[in-house]
Amino acid sequence: MSVLVVGSVAFDSVKTPYGEAEEAIGGSATYFAAAASFFTPVDIVAVVGTDFPRESLQFLSERHVDLSGLEVADGRTFRWAGEYQLNMNDRETLDTQLNVLADFHPNLADRHREQPFVFLANIDPELQASVLKQTVHPDLVICDTMDFWISGKRDALLETMTQVDVLIINDSEARDLVEDHNLARAANQILGLGPRAVVIKRGEHGATLITNDTYFSVPAFPVLSVMDPTGAGDSFAGGFVGYLAKSKDTSDIGLKNAMVHGSVMASFNVEDFSVRRLETLTPHEIDHRYDRFIEMITL
Amino acid sequence: MSVLVVGSVAFDSVKTPYGEAEEAIGGSATYFAAAASFFTPVDIVAVVGTDFPRESLQFLSERHVDLSGLEVADGRTFRWAGEYQLNMNDRETLDTQLNVLADFHPNLADRHREQPFVFLANIDPELQASVLKQTVHPDLVICDTMDFWISGKRDALLETMTQVDVLIINDSEARDLVEDHNLARAANQILGLGPRAVVIKRGEHGATLITNDTYFSVPAFPVLSVMDPTGAGDSFAGGFVGYLAKSKDTSDIGLKNAMVHGSVMASFNVEDFSVRRLETLTPHEIDHRYDRFIEMITL
Repeated sequence: MSVLVVGSVAFDSVKTPYGEAEEAIGGSATYFAAAASFFTPVDIVAVVGTDFPRESLQFLSERHVDLSGLEVADGRTFRWAGEYQLNMNDRETLDTQLNVLADFHPNLADRHREQPFVFLANIDPELQASVLKQTVHPDLVICDTMDFWISGKRDALLETMTQVDVLIINDSEARDLVEDHNLARAANQILGLGPRAVVIKRGEHGATLITNDTYFSVPAFPVLSVMDPTGAGDSFAGGFVGYLAKSKDTSDIGLKNAMVHGSVMASFNVEDFSVRRLETLTPHEIDHRYDRFIEMITL
Repeated sequence: MSVLVVGSVAFDSVKTPYGEAEEAIGGSATYFAAAASFFTPVDIVAVVGTDFPRESLQFLSERHVDLSGLEVADGRTFRWAGEYQLNMNDRETLDTQLNVLADFHPNLADRHREQPFVFLANIDPELQASVLKQTVHPDLVICDTMDFWISGKRDALLETMTQVDVLIINDSEARDLVEDHNLARAANQILGLGPRAVVIKRGEHGATLITNDTYFSVPAFPVLSVMDPTGAGDSFAGGFVGYLAKSKDTSDIGLKNAMVHGSVMASFNVEDFSVRRLETLTPHEIDHRYDRFIEMITL
């Protein structure tokens, strides 16, 4: 089955202790699609400005990513700039220019409306809701969000949440969303908001899946040379949702397996700046790391 | 097989967002022994002052913990006071009074020298070395340390490290010890200092075992009501070493199993102040949580 992602396509300027990238291709939809495309066809719905070089996404087209929903609007593409500290966990946003993203109103074509898997990347929860309104009974809705919306558009986010099956969120955001410092309790409370599953991303410490019946944690794959963590969450989501769409198993066992595939894809993504590593990655490399990952979590 | 622990027995005054304990029984040797005693006999070598109520350790004697090595010195018992923040990870030390611990020189009786498993709790690395000098070819030496010794007695610590089989250390200390922010690289470097295994404690995110052939992570058991994290590291070590001594399997597979037992014991410890939870704990409760833990990490 195939996946619809609605999110951002962007220019990122990133500095880490190990190098920097200037106006490199980024954005949540880009990272997600690059990772998910190893498992399943993906449709992107997003907006770029007239300054965006469409050929930079050519590698996605070659992997059955449909770009017909990539709107080109008058103006400049969304830009983000940030710098990571030595520990690679703390980052500072240096600049955000919404540009064409400020007036983005996702319009789904017929082929998008009927996609069985929908990933709502980290955008305004009101836009997330408007996307869901245009879909036709998707099998599974997966959603990401961030602190900016949790504090700034809380009511809209809670409303969107009632229509979401799986929420993917990082640990500090999970605590903020339900205002509970105990992560296990916070996760249980999030299940009360609508989702039947919540995935808590813990950065270098891995991720945890919580449903009413399941609590399952995976570590992060130990990458010896982390170059740039940007997009790790979205490539995790790409591997997670891509695998679900491919396997068609959305049971708790399917979700557990998806956690491993998400972690594997995120581990590749951080090995280079922008989407470079996902661009050159091969299915053979993914299989190999998957096997090593399974070894790593098997008693 | 039985275990020798050399460490502290203390009075702790702890404040957390959920309550406080005034001059309650604490200390690394106490927490370690309380946890390990569920698996194997334990000998404690430590010092207290004349103000220490020996009957407060009666519950340990009933579980085959030998207290003949608990020296009573003229003066007051070691005291520590600290306060935890809302997230229960950050803590502030409010007061440290070494008292009789300042002049502690562990003297091993014959029965201690020949113990096959030796746990060097977090004390001065010079004392750790002097303990090892008194032992007779132990099968396995496990060692803990902290930032205070890493920065203050680095050379002595590195010297001790050459005689240690398993180092148990938290994530920030591992980074500091070898001055590398990448945890996977840091762990590999620690293996170069002497230990054949390193266990990196990640607090609420679990723990990771690294050897030359194995990388194995466990999550923390999700405790819904964490009352007091004091002693979590030592009760982890107690479950870890206690299980190894009981199973006599110190292969990488044995170490992996020990990780689970360590995590289970730490998860009980944080449910109440001081050693209260370990005092009332039953083998049946441990078995039950172990089964739930295995479920939690099984794909």
